[in-house]
Amino acid sequence: MGPVNVGLDIGATKTLGLVIDDAGEILAEVREATEPGTDGVVRTAARVVEALRAATGEPLTGTVGVGIPGLVDPPNGTVKHAVNLGLDGDWFPLGQALGERLGVRVVVENDVNAASLGAVKVCGEDDLVYLSIGTGLAAGLVLEGRLRRGDHGAAGEVGHIPVDPMGALCECGQRGCLETIASGSALASAWPSSGHVPPAQALFAAAQGGDEKAVAVRDEFAAGVASAIRVLALAVDPRTVVLGGGVAQLGEQLRVAVAGALQAQAASSPFLASLDLAGRLRVVPADYPVAAVGAALLGR
Amino acid sequence: MGPVNVGLDIGATKTLGLVIDDAGEILAEVREATEPGTDGVVRTAARVVEALRAATGEPLTGTVGVGIPGLVDPPNGTVKHAVNLGLDGDWFPLGQALGERLGVRVVVENDVNAASLGAVKVCGEDDLVYLSIGTGLAAGLVLEGRLRRGDHGAAGEVGHIPVDPMGALCECGQRGCLETIASGSALASAWPSSGHVPPAQALFAAAQGGDEKAVAVRDEFAAGVASAIRVLALAVDPRTVVLGGGVAQLGEQLRVAVAGALQAQAASSPFLASLDLAGRLRVVPADYPVAAVGAALLGR
Repeated sequence: MGPVNVGLDIGATKTLGLVIDDAGEILAEVREATEPGTDGVVRTAARVVEALRAATGEPLTGTVGVGIPGLVDPPNGTVKHAVNLGLDGDWFPLGQALGERLGVRVVVENDVNAASLGAVKVCGEDDLVYLSIGTGLAAGLVLEGRLRRGDHGAAGEVGHIPVDPMGALCECGQRGCLETIASGSALASAWPSSGHVPPAQALFAAAQGGDEKAVAVRDEFAAGVASAIRVLALAVDPRTVVLGGGVAQLGEQLRVAVAGALQAQAASSPFLASLDLAGRLRVVPADYPVAAVGAALLGR
Repeated sequence: MGPVNVGLDIGATKTLGLVIDDAGEILAEVREATEPGTDGVVRTAARVVEALRAATGEPLTGTVGVGIPGLVDPPNGTVKHAVNLGLDGDWFPLGQALGERLGVRVVVENDVNAASLGAVKVCGEDDLVYLSIGTGLAAGLVLEGRLRRGDHGAAGEVGHIPVDPMGALCECGQRGCLETIASGSALASAWPSSGHVPPAQALFAAAQGGDEKAVAVRDEFAAGVASAIRVLALAVDPRTVVLGGGVAQLGEQLRVAVAGALQAQAASSPFLASLDLAGRLRVVPADYPVAAVGAALLGR
């Protein structure tokens, strides 16, 4: 086996690990339920790497890249505010703890930033914004090949940009934030779903079926995503915008809805129309492990 | 005389030219009324360079950098949509026309982008957003030392981000754009000024004097500027935010008003407060020719 890289995407419900080769091909993939808390997170991650060692028959002694939600300080490999993982205390030295356990070097990055590097790989574009529509709404920026973290690590936190003074109160304390319109949680409260179908799937199916209320809810959601894209385009003007996160499992139907909303916004503005934002829109392929692939690339 | 650089800031009313040395010190400065139209703009620019040659006693045969409003294609040295200069037709090859006239190489950049490079020089910071509050509202981004133009040259066009669905109609065709709240023209229509005092000066003086209406207008304006800064901070999170443009002639009183508005916005949001946007705010020193200095740096 040639040179390979290991990447982990540590999420609140599962930890996904994979091994990629130099061309970015996925050689092995493993997922485990994530145990919460500092010990649980490290134990789960180590178990995933051991499973990858078993699956590939390789010692995998190179750098392991990790993407994880919350505030991350990459130079120190520390994590904070990953509340859904039970990491809500002081800075936790995840890189050091996991590195000692596995006997390898571990680098840590915010999961959305990691995913933006994965999006670069899957799109073959090195100038893009990756917009993650999960429970919340956040973006990762890769500008001319360089990951933009920002001075306080807040680059891409577009979910907390207010766009309506009369909008809903956001968890962050502000009113009318983009996240209150264009996120999985906003969608789930606007279109509560029972049973096993995720709210986004249920909503888009109902809208597709002609349910007028569903059409209205879907269109408002799509307009919110379009507003987030407009903000990012008028701030950094990326060549490509890639939609990811749980809601992006909708795939092409999400792209079509958001592209339509972008075109509707541009209809009144020749300036906006000249930017052709709809034409720059992509969606991460269904089930492509974009954050884990990006995490693996961190080790290069 | 050691190595020097020549920069021009071509504006609708005046063209300002200067010569700086390697340390960025201004060795000579000249301004002339700008003649409109393609011939007029080139003639004025050439006259300014000749005056700089006379003032310094040097042939100034190095590259001349030019900052100019409108759409600029730097690789080609062409300009479009500089409507206030009478350049509203096809792409005009300003770099070539001026270069042939002067017998030197000429590089052309959008004036706000040029000014952001000047802001880097005057602040000694290479990671900043320069927010130009002139007739309109636009930003220039220098991220880790690199000017960010964007894929369609639209990076920093934050003036056309809508933040209020019930807001005023913008010239761009959208409603509630930041430019309709936080620009010199917004300020002039909210606080029309007679006589020789610019509206911004008149407004801030009246507010300082206790005029309640003036206080309300000033505070709404400052809140709009703060909203633009919040957008930029949550998109790219620059180390420093520098206010410039005509309205920034207000100097420290503008910084204080905007810092207050940023603190008011952060009062409801611990997340926003943690970013300390007010503490990152600077204003270009009064009368510092930031765009011409930045234009001169283009020639390096």
